[in-house]
Formats: sequence, C-alpha cells, structure tokens
Amino acid sequence: MGDAGNGRIYVLRLGHRPERDKRVTTHVALVARAFGAHGFILADVCDEHVMNSIRRVLDRWGGRMYLECGVSGSRYVKEWRRRGGLVVHLTMYGLHIDDVIDEIRASPKPKLVVVGAEKVPRLFYEEADYNVAIGHQPHSEVAALAVFLDRLYMGLELHLSFPEAKVVVEPSAHGKKVVKRG
Amino acid sequence: MGDAGNGRIYVLRLGHRPERDKRVTTHVALVARAFGAHGFILADVCDEHVMNSIRRVLDRWGGRMYLECGVSGSRYVKEWRRRGGLVVHLTMYGLHIDDVIDEIRASPKPKLVVVGAEKVPRLFYEEADYNVAIGHQPHSEVAALAVFLDRLYMGLELHLSFPEAKVVVEPSAHGKKVVKRG
Repeated sequence: MGDAGNGRIYVLRLGHRPERDKRVTTHVALVARAFGAHGFILADVCDEHVMNSIRRVLDRWGGRMYLECGVSGSRYVKEWRRRGGLVVHLTMYGLHIDDVIDEIRASPKPKLVVVGAEKVPRLFYEEADYNVAIGHQPHSEVAALAVFLDRLYMGLELHLSFPEAKVVVEPSAHGKKVVKRG
Repeated sequence: MGDAGNGRIYVLRLGHRPERDKRVTTHVALVARAFGAHGFILADVCDEHVMNSIRRVLDRWGGRMYLECGVSGSRYVKEWRRRGGLVVHLTMYGLHIDDVIDEIRASPKPKLVVVGAEKVPRLFYEEADYNVAIGHQPHSEVAALAVFLDRLYMGLELHLSFPEAKVVVEPSAHGKKVVKRG
C-alpha cells in the first residue's frame, strides 16, 4: 500500500480487462501522472503493457510515482479507510463535483480516487466517502479523472515540472519542440 | 460538413485505427457529447463500433449531434478555415491552454477541435489557428478534450440537460438512481 501522507492522491483503477482496456487504462495511468497524482494502482491484474507504458513515460518525462498492481480493489479501499484515508469514487451516478469538490479539497486526509471500468460492484458505492459525478452523463473514466484532478488542484497541475525529466516540451505555436535536459 | 453556426463546436478525431483505438475513440466521442460539442467527425474510416456507441447514447441519454465519418481530415480542416471557422488542434507541443483559452473563447467563429491519436501529420500543426497544450506532458486525447471543453465553457457544460433524454440520473451519495422520463 502506498505512502498515504497528508494531501497525497492515489488513483486505483478497477475492472481492467487486459485485451479490451489496455489503452484506456494506460490513459488513466498517464492522466494520473500528468495531473499530479502520487500513485497509480491497478486492481486484480498486473498488465505489463499498462505498467510498462507508465514506467517508460516516468523514465523519459520525469516524475516519481508509487506503482502497484494485482491488488484486491475492495480490500485496498477498506484498508485505505481503516488507515484514515479518504476514498473518492468517480461515477456518473454520484453527487455533482461542483457540490463536493471544496469539501474534498479541504480534507487533509490522503485521497484514494477510485476509477472503474464498466459495472463497478455496489460495494465501492457503499464504501466510498464520496461518490462524485463529473456531470451525470455517460462519458469516460479518463475524462472524469482529468477533470476531477484539474478541479481539485485548481489548474495548477498543468504547470507542474517533473523532477529528473530527460526531455521537456518547449511550447510552440505551430510545431514540435522537445529539448533534452541535463 | 457540419452546420458551422457561430459559437458551435465540432470535434474532429484523426488517426483512428479500428482495432486498437475503438474504445479510446468512443471515449472521445462521448466526451464531445457530454461536454457540449455540437458535432463529432471521425476522419478516414467509418468505424461502426464507435458510431453506433455514440448513437446509442444519444438515443438513450438525449442530445442532438452532427455525426460524420470517413472524411479526409486535412481537407476538412482546410475547408473549415476557408468557410471562416477556427481550427484548434490539441497537442502537448502547443501553447499552454492558460495562455490562449480566453482568446479562443472570445472568438465568435465556429470551432473545430482536432484530436489526434499518435503521430499527427505536420500539416495539422501548420493549418491550425491554435495548437493548444493541456499541459506539456504526455497523457490522453480524451483527457485533453474534456479539460479543453471544461475550460472553454467554464464548467457550465457539466450542468447541461439534454433534450429528448429517455433517462436521467438522480444524484446519489451512495447508490445508482436512474429515472425514466416522458
């Protein structure tokens, strides 16, 4: 289980089916990193495609992240709460983000953001401290995670610089510029 | 080509590879709908898996959207500009969203938001009025589109109600409530 220091954010991905979801779950992991989460945990399976993709990005683009896979999602959530952490489950059936984000942000507890694929077991709805809807329309867990973290960090996460990056982008109006570091 | 009325937003998805990307592209289409875009255009191919997924969601959850597929992305972009529209290409190599979003929002032109998969041809970087980075880290076109539209609409899009919805969610702290309409 990750280091649940105060203010830290971990993302737990549930229900990953390796063949079907490998790209979507990779996007979830990359969003977790790019939007400032401190850890990414893949429940049930260790899909090396996903885990290696995030490791490669960490190596090249920098940042440090706690990574884990193959855990039981339900046990992880229960243990997180037992240790005093907050569990936030993203679901279109939950409370609107605008009604709860300030309260969640104000909590000093370490936060576990739970992101499902299809058909999340009822237990997670019950165990979560917050079930949060990024709007009440069906869309995407990748989008939901990004908007949740963007609101939580109030946009500051898009200005993070990542330690030990080998390359950084130099913003460009009409091209691609990547600069080597070190 | 979609009805490019003032203030309207269309999303053009490039580089879709049916086997590999069907779920990610479906997420792009669902985000386009849920976050208030008026049209979704899939370049190069007509992947019925993707198009049927978005049609099913429109049928059940409501909303109207212009849908098109199999177009040439480069011709579409050129024609959009020729007709007086604005082209916004989302890419981690572009200008930071915080530096350009107000200018883009202020433009009365209809906007075509171009969302690539891997390796977008240089032409799109050159033809776009704006190349916009949702941060300069690698993550996800699904996340990029969601955050772009969220910033463009200043969060109002998460409160849209969709005409002709057969079902709507009733927000719930710890369960799932869906109410039939009509």
